[in-house]
Amino acid sequence: MTRVGVIGATGYAGAELVRLLCGHPDIELTILTSRQYAGVAYDAIYPSMKNVTRLVCEDMIVDRICDKADVVFTALPHKLPMTIAPDLLHRGKKVIDLSADFRFTDAAVYESFYDGHKAKDLLKTSVYGLCEIYFEQIRNADLIGVPGCYPTSVLLPLIPVLRSKFVDMDTLIADSKSGVSGAGRSLSLTTHFCEANESFKAYKVATHRHNPEMEMVLSRETGVPTTLTFVPHLAPMTRGILTTIYAGLSQRISLDDVYDCFLSFYSECPFIRLFNGNKFPDTLYVRGTNYCDIGFKLDERNHRLILISAIDNLVKGAAGQAVQNMNIMLGLDETAGLLGVPFPI
Amino acid sequence: MTRVGVIGATGYAGAELVRLLCGHPDIELTILTSRQYAGVAYDAIYPSMKNVTRLVCEDMIVDRICDKADVVFTALPHKLPMTIAPDLLHRGKKVIDLSADFRFTDAAVYESFYDGHKAKDLLKTSVYGLCEIYFEQIRNADLIGVPGCYPTSVLLPLIPVLRSKFVDMDTLIADSKSGVSGAGRSLSLTTHFCEANESFKAYKVATHRHNPEMEMVLSRETGVPTTLTFVPHLAPMTRGILTTIYAGLSQRISLDDVYDCFLSFYSECPFIRLFNGNKFPDTLYVRGTNYCDIGFKLDERNHRLILISAIDNLVKGAAGQAVQNMNIMLGLDETAGLLGVPFPI
Amino acid sequence: MTRVGVIGATGYAGAELVRLLCGHPDIELTILTSRQYAGVAYDAIYPSMKNVTRLVCEDMIVDRICDKADVVFTALPHKLPMTIAPDLLHRGKKVIDLSADFRFTDAAVYESFYDGHKAKDLLKTSVYGLCEIYFEQIRNADLIGVPGCYPTSVLLPLIPVLRSKFVDMDTLIADSKSGVSGAGRSLSLTTHFCEANESFKAYKVATHRHNPEMEMVLSRETGVPTTLTFVPHLAPMTRGILTTIYAGLSQRISLDDVYDCFLSFYSECPFIRLFNGNKFPDTLYVRGTNYCDIGFKLDERNHRLILISAIDNLVKGAAGQAVQNMNIMLGLDETAGLLGVPFPI
Amino acid sequence: MTRVGVIGATGYAGAELVRLLCGHPDIELTILTSRQYAGVAYDAIYPSMKNVTRLVCEDMIVDRICDKADVVFTALPHKLPMTIAPDLLHRGKKVIDLSADFRFTDAAVYESFYDGHKAKDLLKTSVYGLCEIYFEQIRNADLIGVPGCYPTSVLLPLIPVLRSKFVDMDTLIADSKSGVSGAGRSLSLTTHFCEANESFKAYKVATHRHNPEMEMVLSRETGVPTTLTFVPHLAPMTRGILTTIYAGLSQRISLDDVYDCFLSFYSECPFIRLFNGNKFPDTLYVRGTNYCDIGFKLDERNHRLILISAIDNLVKGAAGQAVQNMNIMLGLDETAGLLGVPFPI
Repeated sequence: MTRVGVIGATGYAGAELVRLLCGHPDIELTILTSRQYAGVAYDAIYPSMKNVTRLVCEDMIVDRICDKADVVFTALPHKLPMTIAPDLLHRGKKVIDLSADFRFTDAAVYESFYDGHKAKDLLKTSVYGLCEIYFEQIRNADLIGVPGCYPTSVLLPLIPVLRSKFVDMDTLIADSKSGVSGAGRSLSLTTHFCEANESFKAYKVATHRHNPEMEMVLSRETGVPTTLTFVPHLAPMTRGILTTIYAGLSQRISLDDVYDCFLSFYSECPFIRLFNGNKFPDTLYVRGTNYCDIGFKLDERNHRLILISAIDNLVKGAAGQAVQNMNIMLGLDETAGLLGVPFPI
Repeated sequence: MTRVGVIGATGYAGAELVRLLCGHPDIELTILTSRQYAGVAYDAIYPSMKNVTRLVCEDMIVDRICDKADVVFTALPHKLPMTIAPDLLHRGKKVIDLSADFRFTDAAVYESFYDGHKAKDLLKTSVYGLCEIYFEQIRNADLIGVPGCYPTSVLLPLIPVLRSKFVDMDTLIADSKSGVSGAGRSLSLTTHFCEANESFKAYKVATHRHNPEMEMVLSRETGVPTTLTFVPHLAPMTRGILTTIYAGLSQRISLDDVYDCFLSFYSECPFIRLFNGNKFPDTLYVRGTNYCDIGFKLDERNHRLILISAIDNLVKGAAGQAVQNMNIMLGLDETAGLLGVPFPI
Repeated sequence: MTRVGVIGATGYAGAELVRLLCGHPDIELTILTSRQYAGVAYDAIYPSMKNVTRLVCEDMIVDRICDKADVVFTALPHKLPMTIAPDLLHRGKKVIDLSADFRFTDAAVYESFYDGHKAKDLLKTSVYGLCEIYFEQIRNADLIGVPGCYPTSVLLPLIPVLRSKFVDMDTLIADSKSGVSGAGRSLSLTTHFCEANESFKAYKVATHRHNPEMEMVLSRETGVPTTLTFVPHLAPMTRGILTTIYAGLSQRISLDDVYDCFLSFYSECPFIRLFNGNKFPDTLYVRGTNYCDIGFKLDERNHRLILISAIDNLVKGAAGQAVQNMNIMLGLDETAGLLGVPFPI
Repeated sequence: MTRVGVIGATGYAGAELVRLLCGHPDIELTILTSRQYAGVAYDAIYPSMKNVTRLVCEDMIVDRICDKADVVFTALPHKLPMTIAPDLLHRGKKVIDLSADFRFTDAAVYESFYDGHKAKDLLKTSVYGLCEIYFEQIRNADLIGVPGCYPTSVLLPLIPVLRSKFVDMDTLIADSKSGVSGAGRSLSLTTHFCEANESFKAYKVATHRHNPEMEMVLSRETGVPTTLTFVPHLAPMTRGILTTIYAGLSQRISLDDVYDCFLSFYSECPFIRLFNGNKFPDTLYVRGTNYCDIGFKLDERNHRLILISAIDNLVKGAAGQAVQNMNIMLGLDETAGLLGVPFPI
């Protein structure tokens, strides 16, 4: 049975990895590390895990990690994964990184939005882990850059209609709304209960670091430099991203054309669910799941296509997609450990 | 002292009117009606009002209303105000209606999105009560159609930049997010706690009845037929609307140009607050107030202007703006009864 | 494989049954009924279930149910299960009822708090399905009355200390706080988002119908008539019950005595988790799980023992405990289908 | 016009003081201090205050404060007020402290739950500012220790029935539920949105520092040492405390006796609202107000009286009661600045 470790197991993405991996039938979770909580039992940090795991957080020591795990998830702030990934890969481990460090093929783009990159060579072989789109590359990869939560919610609905050339690539706008867990477990006034409750606000308007990540992928898809206006918002809920995309139509199409486009594009994809007939996604429907729900509407008066997607930012937007990548890399069923039945409410 | 009545006092807009009018220094609230709760003490319906008002809800009887009130607010579902307003006006009352019945100048537009109109004559003299824009007309009006909550949040940020010809009128998109109180007090699964909590969703995508209302005003402002793609969303909070507007630039402008445009346009408007310097509105900042907060950002890479507004849907989006209309009509200070200090949280 | 049906599948307890049964490895869910939604696909009612189940709700027809299912869960309002259970039992089905109809051994008690009972004979053989306490009886039962959510949260912490005679049975007080889902999916102002959000209130103070249910069990445990002051409250959250119990000490005991009492009493019980050392249960820790977390504190100055329990009202308080009963009745592992890994947040 | 200053103006109690004082008709708010935000405009810290105040936070310099203010509110962590209050009083200022520093008459009690006391002399003259109970002493005081939020919610319902000798003073239990703002603006995991949302929990079980404060007052009222079992809980909402009190009856009384007791006790008290006839307080009814709502129920089977109170922890539980104290001290109408009309939702 494949042995798996989680580096950075106590942030929300790490904790969600632990949740999914503890319930995964085909792997064994063997090591958790935490800079902040080394030496502390995991269920003392997350008491919901009492009786579920007896793992104790450890320091991040490469030798120890390599002894214990064949696949390593890194759920760390950016800049840290690039310092540890080369060692892990060198020792034959598969690395699935949830930060931005290995999402970009062009180090210069990374460096203009983040910091200096210390493992540029790896960018040549790392694969952008958007599973439904880059399945084949993932299957052969040793190093995955798991997409950001917002890019996942934007790219999955947008790529099919772009490939079908339904929309004009100069007109793309994405308006995203995220639950508070997207901001992580670090303390801040923004995520203080009393300042987030009954609050709805935009932030990093047209300046979010996921913007260049999305544009890199969009440009790869269209073959020409493609940009996107992107505005993220914070909603008073724990989990979920709802993204509304506005795109000008480049040709006369019908609702059926759009539906058929998605239906055929995602026919083999167990985590994509399509909504049509004036039904639309809701973050509540995907809470705790790895689904990406997609709905759409033609605004014919204005010659625009409106796409709406919903994901759980911690699952399909982070830990779930990371596990899906692992499944693909290991030749397991893509859905292994990811089909927990959704909650009705 | 002017005597004021509220017809339909137990829905949320009506209840907010009662709140504001009970605290208004220059008028006397004399009569409340409710079809559902006639005969019931108001503080038995809203126990927060214990010790504040002793009014008892009455049936909606025109003679009685006319005996008791000089100004009448109608906070009823559409189609009802048009049946009572003619009588009230005929007896010399001023009528401020919160439904859609008197917002449209063209009955055909109303009828295509609502129902048959039974008081078309009144549409010639009724005034669209967007106070900051149509102050002069309001001052002389006897009948006001108070703008919808979404239109208020869209028009106040958009009209100044349209008048300044900063943006291309073919590119207008408004993405609005509303608290649940916007759906009113009527029971439905959509507003059931367990289905609204942790839920974020779009609804009436590009088909909301506030769409033609906004386009009527925008067309009036631009002088040519002007359309808008509009998508409303429901957020898990009680109060507030945040609207994000995307508009293509029609000329090269700077952030200062936008700020100056708003600053001069709204220099005399006590309820408009401007945000600049990468600070943006938040529904929490306007909760319970009549303010409309406006922020903006230039997305220069994409030649777009992004406008962001926040209002309390029940105050500036309904009852507060209605009272502001009354103040203007009566020659009172525009802010009378509307300057309760905002809550920090 | 045992075939299972859910009668009343669209209320929240029914929907939670569907969730758990769809993920259960040892049974097959074969039929769902709904008076309100007969003929409607289940995933049209709960879109979170898209791709998970293709079952369509049916009318409640006994023949059809008996053709399709060996075990039948009834998740109906009280008075209805008693009309259908006799038929089901007569045809050899096992029946697990989530209403109050089969919780009482004494029909007179039932009738004084509910209505006339139409299947009194069955009360002689029905078993009160509090799994950790009545495991042996459940194993041999054909008809289970699943305990109410509040009684589960009160009895599991209270019975061990009562059996140990630590507390004076004349001093029992339980103060419970429930999420809104406890009120079900029926629409009411109490559960309207805007009236439940930011609201905390008591209801049915010392008059709740779960009070006699608890007293029946407590009296059975103590051997003498035992009463309880019980006050339920509604908290602004979807799921969870936290119960705080106050009991006068009948003897001098230490914290270790209490801990040891629980430890030995529940040593074989996979769903009981104990908190000690100034750590206490939290509804968030049990959200979506079948756990009952129990904590305690000695208030030595006042000679009282304070017990605190947390459950998910829809799982351990309803559907999860119902499935646990089924597992025991069928001789399956008690935990089958009930060990989904808890969420960190 | 009396000039007023707020020391520690940026915590939630301080911010609520600023809100109330900005709307107070009879005083002028002249100085705000903040250790953390000295030099920062108040509306940059709380943007809801844009257009409302132009005050800028200052360092806490006694000379400057004394120049600017006649009445000083100290909204600081305990231990700090005792270092500044002597100077302020010496210069003839009136001081209203919201910490625990001046609530106790016996320094030893303070020191056993807090820290060493550095201004013990002042405890002889400081007055416990529970306005409805100690009105006369407050009227003549120069230094007020404003009661804690929980003690306010416990003492106001309990003192009348204790004075009437309805209940046995050995049986007192208070189970309180507080919104998250009670934990203040300091960052912590407990108040992190994702850990507080959908979470209900007890904390400091029978060890909260408000326990001795309540017992001091109760003992003063009964004339003998009187204790109380007190368990506070945290509820997922911003504002509000609901307290449920359980007390054994010491005599045979009727519901009317209880109602009459409260009615006569609080006949002159504008901020006490009584609920009877199976109606009970709700935190939503008092949100943003200075009311303390009180309801009650006789549990005759168990010979207990159940009292239920609701307050807004930041208003009647802190800033509102502080302003009420100021009004009384200055001989103003007790309600000045405190009668903002409550919100319906």
